[in-house]
Amino acid sequence: MPHLLHIDSSLAPEGSVSRGVAEAYAESWRKHHPDGTLTHRDLATSPPPHLNWALVSGGQTPPEQRTPEQAEAVKIREEYLEEVESADEYVISVPMYNYAYPSTIKAWLDQVIVMGRTAGGTAGDGVLAGRKVTVITAQGGSYAPGAPKEGWDHQVPYLRHAFEALGADNIEFITVVMTLSKVNPALAAFTDVFEASRTAAEQAARDRAAA
Amino acid sequence: MPHLLHIDSSLAPEGSVSRGVAEAYAESWRKHHPDGTLTHRDLATSPPPHLNWALVSGGQTPPEQRTPEQAEAVKIREEYLEEVESADEYVISVPMYNYAYPSTIKAWLDQVIVMGRTAGGTAGDGVLAGRKVTVITAQGGSYAPGAPKEGWDHQVPYLRHAFEALGADNIEFITVVMTLSKVNPALAAFTDVFEASRTAAEQAARDRAAA
Repeated sequence: MPHLLHIDSSLAPEGSVSRGVAEAYAESWRKHHPDGTLTHRDLATSPPPHLNWALVSGGQTPPEQRTPEQAEAVKIREEYLEEVESADEYVISVPMYNYAYPSTIKAWLDQVIVMGRTAGGTAGDGVLAGRKVTVITAQGGSYAPGAPKEGWDHQVPYLRHAFEALGADNIEFITVVMTLSKVNPALAAFTDVFEASRTAAEQAARDRAAA
Repeated sequence: MPHLLHIDSSLAPEGSVSRGVAEAYAESWRKHHPDGTLTHRDLATSPPPHLNWALVSGGQTPPEQRTPEQAEAVKIREEYLEEVESADEYVISVPMYNYAYPSTIKAWLDQVIVMGRTAGGTAGDGVLAGRKVTVITAQGGSYAPGAPKEGWDHQVPYLRHAFEALGADNIEFITVVMTLSKVNPALAAFTDVFEASRTAAEQAARDRAAA
């Protein structure tokens, strides 16, 4: 029975572009996997704790010798780990804040990247090896060659490496650009680019979920 | 009266390389600025909250109409903002976890980057314009050209842009490499590189604090 782990991280409870595209994926997936199960985790409403010393030191301490704080930190990480390990397909939506992914995405990755257990450090070696991973990203502007902020995309390049460290070897990024074109007057000329980008992303998401 | 804001983010309460270099900076700074004041903020023991909807929506709501949750989120951000605004020199130490900065650093940046107040979006336009900023980074391996993980440094390039967005135009990065050489057998051959790198970083930090 296929099991999809669906993760959102946009702060916006309504109108989020990245959430919308991930939902298009999930809807298509449900239709094409009537026997499938889906876990939805919302990192905005339930933010993962920052990696801390209690967790790192607790992980190096035998269970019976852990302090209550260490035991609690390890227990929380175990829930994140089991959630990742028990899925066989993933859709993760990620907005861009201040030219990078939200801090909740890094906190989540720091919980689930455990070398030797979930992570081997390279594509093909880790929990995600052989599993379908789709990352939906939304970007307020454009970071394409020639754009004024070329080279300022600190979202997709990192996420690619982080998921590769978890073994991902069947990963696709679907990116919507110019999401701020409707609210930032300096980007108003790019509203059509944004709309076309969103429509194409939703279709790409539906197609990949069906494949 | 000069005022240094000293920020640490390594989880390790003892033996942290990045903390050690930042402390070398602070020590030298105190010696050369006997009339100066110093604020120390530890993002590991006091982690900043993840950016959330209460803060974003609260920031767009007149003070008298904010919910208690919004008011509290805005109040916390205000403390971070005033701490940055009231300093005139900065030393920030940042380790690398899973090929990037800790989530606490991103959470802190998301608190303090406020377009039109602290951030103009480019070097020279923002709260850090004309102020001395020093970022100490520690990296477990090496991401230099030719290294197996060339291109996997998702720490320094982002931090450079994030601080530029805050206006930084007098910024120096001091980086220690191969910090894992003493614990990771695969990197054992690089212990000397690490030690030389740390010694050079401490000296560079002392010199810059004195300048």
